[in-house]
Formats: sequence, C-alpha cells, structure tokens
Amino acid sequence: MGDISCSNGINGYSSSNGNGHAQRKSCWYEEEIEENLRWCFALNSILHTGATQYQDIQLLDTKPFGKALVIDGKLQSAEIDEFIYHESLVHPALLHHVNPKSIFIMGGGEGSTARELLRHRTVEKVVMCDIDQEVVDFCKSYLVVNREAFRDPRLDLVINDARAELERREELYDVIIGDLADPIEGGPCYQLYTKSFYEFTIKPRLNEGGIFVTQAGPAGVFSHTEVFSCIYNTLRQVFKCKFTDKRKFL
Amino acid sequence: MGDISCSNGINGYSSSNGNGHAQRKSCWYEEEIEENLRWCFALNSILHTGATQYQDIQLLDTKPFGKALVIDGKLQSAEIDEFIYHESLVHPALLHHVNPKSIFIMGGGEGSTARELLRHRTVEKVVMCDIDQEVVDFCKSYLVVNREAFRDPRLDLVINDARAELERREELYDVIIGDLADPIEGGPCYQLYTKSFYEFTIKPRLNEGGIFVTQAGPAGVFSHTEVFSCIYNTLRQVFKCKFTDKRKFL
Amino acid sequence: MGDISCSNGINGYSSSNGNGHAQRKSCWYEEEIEENLRWCFALNSILHTGATQYQDIQLLDTKPFGKALVIDGKLQSAEIDEFIYHESLVHPALLHHVNPKSIFIMGGGEGSTARELLRHRTVEKVVMCDIDQEVVDFCKSYLVVNREAFRDPRLDLVINDARAELERREELYDVIIGDLADPIEGGPCYQLYTKSFYEFTIKPRLNEGGIFVTQAGPAGVFSHTEVFSCIYNTLRQVFKCKFTDKRKFL
Amino acid sequence: MGDISCSNGINGYSSSNGNGHAQRKSCWYEEEIEENLRWCFALNSILHTGATQYQDIQLLDTKPFGKALVIDGKLQSAEIDEFIYHESLVHPALLHHVNPKSIFIMGGGEGSTARELLRHRTVEKVVMCDIDQEVVDFCKSYLVVNREAFRDPRLDLVINDARAELERREELYDVIIGDLADPIEGGPCYQLYTKSFYEFTIKPRLNEGGIFVTQAGPAGVFSHTEVFSCIYNTLRQVFKCKFTDKRKFL
Repeated sequence: MGDISCSNGINGYSSSNGNGHAQRKSCWYEEEIEENLRWCFALNSILHTGATQYQDIQLLDTKPFGKALVIDGKLQSAEIDEFIYHESLVHPALLHHVNPKSIFIMGGGEGSTARELLRHRTVEKVVMCDIDQEVVDFCKSYLVVNREAFRDPRLDLVINDARAELERREELYDVIIGDLADPIEGGPCYQLYTKSFYEFTIKPRLNEGGIFVTQAGPAGVFSHTEVFSCIYNTLRQVFKCKFTDKRKFL
Repeated sequence: MGDISCSNGINGYSSSNGNGHAQRKSCWYEEEIEENLRWCFALNSILHTGATQYQDIQLLDTKPFGKALVIDGKLQSAEIDEFIYHESLVHPALLHHVNPKSIFIMGGGEGSTARELLRHRTVEKVVMCDIDQEVVDFCKSYLVVNREAFRDPRLDLVINDARAELERREELYDVIIGDLADPIEGGPCYQLYTKSFYEFTIKPRLNEGGIFVTQAGPAGVFSHTEVFSCIYNTLRQVFKCKFTDKRKFL
Repeated sequence: MGDISCSNGINGYSSSNGNGHAQRKSCWYEEEIEENLRWCFALNSILHTGATQYQDIQLLDTKPFGKALVIDGKLQSAEIDEFIYHESLVHPALLHHVNPKSIFIMGGGEGSTARELLRHRTVEKVVMCDIDQEVVDFCKSYLVVNREAFRDPRLDLVINDARAELERREELYDVIIGDLADPIEGGPCYQLYTKSFYEFTIKPRLNEGGIFVTQAGPAGVFSHTEVFSCIYNTLRQVFKCKFTDKRKFL
Repeated sequence: MGDISCSNGINGYSSSNGNGHAQRKSCWYEEEIEENLRWCFALNSILHTGATQYQDIQLLDTKPFGKALVIDGKLQSAEIDEFIYHESLVHPALLHHVNPKSIFIMGGGEGSTARELLRHRTVEKVVMCDIDQEVVDFCKSYLVVNREAFRDPRLDLVINDARAELERREELYDVIIGDLADPIEGGPCYQLYTKSFYEFTIKPRLNEGGIFVTQAGPAGVFSHTEVFSCIYNTLRQVFKCKFTDKRKFL
C-alpha cells in the first residue's frame, strides 16, 4: 500500500465509505398510520403506480409482505396475510347460513372475497359489484392467486356503484357482503354504511334467512373508535335481534 | 349524518384516518451516507434491480433527480446533474490539449463521459474500457441521453479490466480519463489509483503533450480526506511538474 | 416587491423553501421490528439514554404513546397502553385465585405489575425481584404513575436474579408472575422459561392452589411462532392438567 | 435446549428478534430539504425544544454534527462546521478593510459571528442586534464555544429589529454584517434584503471605506436560484462599483 500517498500520514485510501453498509441501503414504502406514527417496509419493486377515476392505486412488491395493494396511500391488502381478512369476512357468514346459493359483494374488486366464496360448493352465483373498472382489471392481471376466481363461470362481475346496482336489481341474495373501504366523510363508500342504506337497500334484498356481513375497520382497544363502534351501533339499530330475526348480521 | 350512530356521542365516522395525509405516503430510496447520516429521496419507480458479476446495480426513477444509477447501494449518477461531473471531467482536459484525437476511458460504462468527449470535433477515436458488460448493456438500453454516443462510429467499446487493456495495447493516447469508482481497499478499482499504475501503465501510453485526468472523489472541506487528498498526493509524485512536463494532469 | 431584483425574471425571493413544511420536520424514534420492517414514532424528547450492567436503556417522551421505555433498542412499554399488558398479566390470575395473599414477581422492574397487584386488597406481600438496580431506580424516578406502588409498604423490592432468589427463599407464594423479557438464546431471561425451571423452581414455591402466570411474547397469527408457542408447549408439559391440578397456570 | 418444547419441531426459542439489530434502532432528526428529498441524522439527545415569540427553536445533540441549532424546523448551524460559514462571513470583510473598528451585526444571535469578529484586534466595538431575546439567552447558556464572546466588553448586545435599530442610531460603522435567515416572503428577515433597505438604511450607516457583507443563502449550481441570485442582483444595483466605490460589498 506504500504505492498510494496520503498527506494525512495514512497510507492508502480510507474504506470508511466502503461496502460495509451497502446491504442497509434500500427502497422503502412509508405510510403514515397517524400524524406521529408511521411504518416502513422494504421494497423489491414498484409494480404499478397510477390513478383511476376514483382513487390512486399502487401495487408494490414488498420484502416482508409480498405483493401489496395500496389505495389512496393506504395499505389495503398484502399477499402474505390477506387470507386472514378475507376468510374472516366470508366463511363465518357462509357456514352460518343453511344453504347459501346467491351472494352479492359490494366492492371486492381485488377478487379475494370472490375467491373465498367460490370455495363453497353450495354457491351458485356471486355478483361482485365494484365501482372501479381499472382496479378490477389491474387485480385481474397482477394477482395470480385470484386468477381462477375471476374466470369462474359462477362469478358475475359488474362495474357500478353498489348502492345503485342493488337498487336496480330485483333478485334477492342469501348473503350480502360489504368488502369496502372505511366510511370516510366525503369518501366513495360513506353511503354504504348508513342506517337508511341498511334499512332500505340491504334488508329488502336479503332472502329469508339471509345474512349481511360487512368489514368494519380495525377493532383494537383504541382503534375501534375510528369506525368500528359506529358501524356496530348503526347495524344494531337496523338488524334488531341478531340471532332470532330471520335476517341477521354477523 | 344522523344516519350513522356512534356510541361515543359523535355522530358519524371519524375522518382522522382520511385522505388528509395521503400525499405524504410514498416510496423512498434511503442511503446511508455514513453511519449516523442518511438521505432519502422519493421514488416514482424502481426500473431495475439486479446483480452483475462485479456489483449490485439499481436503476431508480426518482422524483427529485430523475433517473438515478445506484451501484453497490451508492448513488453514482443522476439524470438531473450528471452533466456537472461529466463536463468537469472531460472538457477542461480536452480544451487544454492542442489537438485531442485519441482518447482512452477507463470505466465510464454509463456512457456519459463518451458522450461529452464525442462533442469535440477533433476527436477521432474513443476507446471506452469497462469491466462490466451487464452495466454497459443496461445503460445502453435505459439511458436515452447517451444512446447516440453508444452508436457513434468513433466509439470503440471494450469489455475488460482497464489496466490489462492498457498494458495489452501498443497505441498511445492524447487523453486518458479515469471515470471509475472510488479506490476502496479490496474494491475493483483500487489498482487504478496507485503510483506504479500511473508511472508504468498510464505514462507510457500518453502521447507527447498527452493529458491524464481522473475522478478523485469528493473534495469538500471534510470529505477530501476520504480519497481526494490521497489521489492528489499520488498524482503529484508521478507527474512531477504539472504544467511544464510534457505530460501533465489536470 | 419590485424592491428586490431577480435575474430569472421572477421579482422577489422564492418561497419554496419556506415554512410550508416546517411542521413535518421532526425528531423520530425508529425501531426495526424485523429486517425489512420498521416503525417510527415522533419524539418530544429523549428523557434518558444510558447503559446499565445488563442492558441499554432509553426513556423517550413520544408524541403518539407518551413516555416509552426502550430496552436494548426494543420498545418495552408505553404510558398510553401499558395497562393493557399489565392488567392482562395480573388480574385474571388474581381473580381466579380464591385468596391471593403473597405474590412473587420475576422481573417487573418498571413497577407496573406491582401497581396492578397492589390494587387487590387480599394481597399482603409482593416480592418484586429484578436483576437491574439501575432500571428500577430509573423507573422509580421517572414513572409517576408507579410512584405510589414503589412506596407501598407491602412491596418488598429485591435486586437479584429471579431464579437464584426463588431458590434461596423457603416461603411459598399464592401467585408467581413472570414479567420478563422474551427468552432469547444467550439473553438474561432464557433460564426463566425452561421446563426444569418450571418443574424444579417454580412448582415447589407455589402454595396449594397457587397460580403461575408468565408473559409469553406476541400471540399473533404469525408472531406466535417466535416464542409464544414454545412457552405454551413447555408450560403444558409441566403443569399437566390445567384446571384440575392443584397448581395451574393461566 | 431440549429443556424447551416447540410444537414446530424446533427445539428452543427463535432468536430472530434478538439483539442482532439492536444497534440500528435509534433516534433520528429528519428534515425535508424539499418535498421529495430529506436527510436524517442520528440524535444523542434533544437538548431543548421550544417556541419563542418569533420562531420555533430546537437544540439537538446529534451524532454526526455535534450540537445543532434548528430554527423553524430547518438546520441553521452545527458545532462541527459552523466555523466554515462564520469565518467566511467575517474574515474576508475584516481583512479587506484597512482598519475595522466598529461593526454592526444584523441578527447573529447565536454568537458565532461576534466570536469571529472579536478575534480581530482592531475591533473596538461590535453591536449585535438580534430580534429574539430567547434565542440569544438560549445560545448564551448552551453554546460553550461562544461563551467568551458573549462576555467580551467590546460586545454591545441589543434586542431589537435590525432595521429599526440601524435607523434609530446615528453612529456609522466600518463593517455591517447580515447574519440573517433567508428572505422568505412574509418571514421576519425579508425587509433586510431589499434595495431600499440597502440604499436608505445600510449605505448611510457605513463609514468612508465601509464594507457591507451579507449571507445570501446557498450558491450551488441549482440552489443559487432560491435566493442567492436575487440578493446578488439587488446588491449590484445599490453598490454600483464593487471595488472603486468608497463603499463596497463583498
């Protein structure tokens, strides 16, 4: 190393900026959970970034969670654990029903709720009504795990506002499922969580013994106040007797 | 909003998790400049991630700097300002030389040094010798701004170790340019910054009046101690009289 | 504004670097939950940073969680929600016991487990045995909410290894509580989660009808594999019949 | 390790969440340089956080830069390199002046400009006029390196708006120095960078041969457009002949 001359008396080049930390430099997705709290996960790649008519959408390939769908900057669903949400949304209702044949999904454009529903052999027809054509197309091409569901002949995919679609249709359903974004004031799904919607749109479209189930946001010790408790209280007023009424909700 | 019931006395759903902060959630590249210091820039997309035989390589589409080339986790070059480095490397030497016709680039696989060289009408031949075929191929396809340079008939692109190539060749050059990574002990470029390399490989390959110029790392008030001062002192011993010797360096 | 001259034709100074984003700049605590996942919370201040004989310790005043205790770079406990952990650790065992009078806490230096225990009027004596004098002193001075517990005459605070202390003592306890760090191989608490420890140290120190309860790490759908399932399976082998054995665990 | 039972066939507790990464978890200061670019440096502690009548102020003890003063969420000055800014601001002007005796500092509450000025033996009087009493008090107590300067009998510390103070005073100065925040529209210093201020307030307060020098923001290849070029052009109009006029600026 005497072959390189350093005025500072050190013979040779410093390696302090060398490769030692190379593995720590990386691409990250960062989400603000709330103002003073955020979480970050490492990225393999950004598969898609775009804006549809209704929302901003990203599909990320993340290191800790696999493929992840981000809508309006908020993680919606990730490959590694989306089954927890979708199985919990679908199976209790379908197992509780004596003979679920016809199902209506409000939202669900990702395809995972349909996938879980179509595992039930009793199911003859699933109407999946999502407002956003582009999200649906996008999930169809990227989410391999739902590809079969999207091709299932029992699936009737409709692009429309779920409320308008339910009001337009005359047929009844054994199970209606709300697989929607949280009810944010001014957001696209707000109207799908109201008392009048439950009373005058959902209820009349349920068969005798029909079941209504909806996602209702996080239900943690603190987070339940965000939307869960409101949705629970709203439901309670419409579906008075949970288990004795011919129409119940889970 | 009386249409939604909240047990907490608030009528309607909280909007605290709404879209207010949506624009702040994003994908970031994060680089550790040193152990306790890092910088982050927002990403549009990750154009490429991969490993060649010699190095890890990423091409990122960044919001503040445009396309950015990251080698071994360290930002090498960005669309928005690479011209500053490449113009400074090339033009002083070429303008200082009376009639620069033949040039040898050590490294330079990105293509930008060649691009600047080929702007000089006197230049008849540019040998660009980079060790990493994949990086060169990769830059050829992605870096639109250098596409014309890569196609220029005056460019002779060689994939080899620059030292071996210079030793193998018998022809002399008017200008030899080192467009290399910093000399990190154990790194691929270390041998291209030594006194013996300058003395026994570079010097003999320069024409009368020939100029040698090399990148030498950051030269800031503090950062010059990393590699700049070492390189400067090494050069000073080989090219004794900067401006009176027939061979000089800038 | 004609009073300021800009060569770029804009009259006056740019405000792009102004105060618009000032509120976004801040101090953050960042923790790697796992290699590719981290979370960050905003800081009001760093109340204390130091190293004891056994561990690194920080007390942070955080914006989202209030005061937070960080041991060896891992968030242990935060003002806003520590009650969830400590109430769950203490109250089921104490309510399940017919007449809990004497309690032994392994660890618990923070003071919160003692605080919850001392709310039970039947409790006559709480031995709290933590290995780290400095952590205890530190929590005594900073954690206002536990101040009363630390002063309670029923509390017998001992600085020692919990295993050694239990083996040294001859008295029996109605409830023994493990309020410890996770069992990491080579870590200080590993020996306090083994079958032989449960069999030969814990069991002999429980009164007839005595209850042993231990923290057992996170029990999530994925995270239970870290330590929870191991601890559960170890306990099951020692305390064979959960509810019929005279000694049970919760 | 057979002493611990794992249902997953692994004997003993996972160490994946162990101490391996402990050293990477830390407290960081994060600043948005611009919307898509930020930098972060590791913190030892937050020495002070507060708001004065005029600005938010933080004193941080940082790992890479030592003590750092942050005003309105923007790093102003750091222990390790503030000398570069302050020496450059002070010494060229003072060395260029034949016999600088009386100096007026606009701003400079940190004390470092005064410190450098008072190193010149010719200097008999330094008026330092900062608007923010609290910042001055705060720097007096925390910035050990400026303690001597604050005690120097030649220093006359005035708390006032620099413009008002200069207009109020009748005495003339050999050197007037602007050690101010950047001119942000609506910000507290905007008026101290205008043509009329230079013409009607500064110029009349300079002695024959007097020098005016001001900080002018960053002067980088890109960043000079923020404020530097504007300030330069404004100065040029007021101090017409840089070196031949009896009053010049540097």
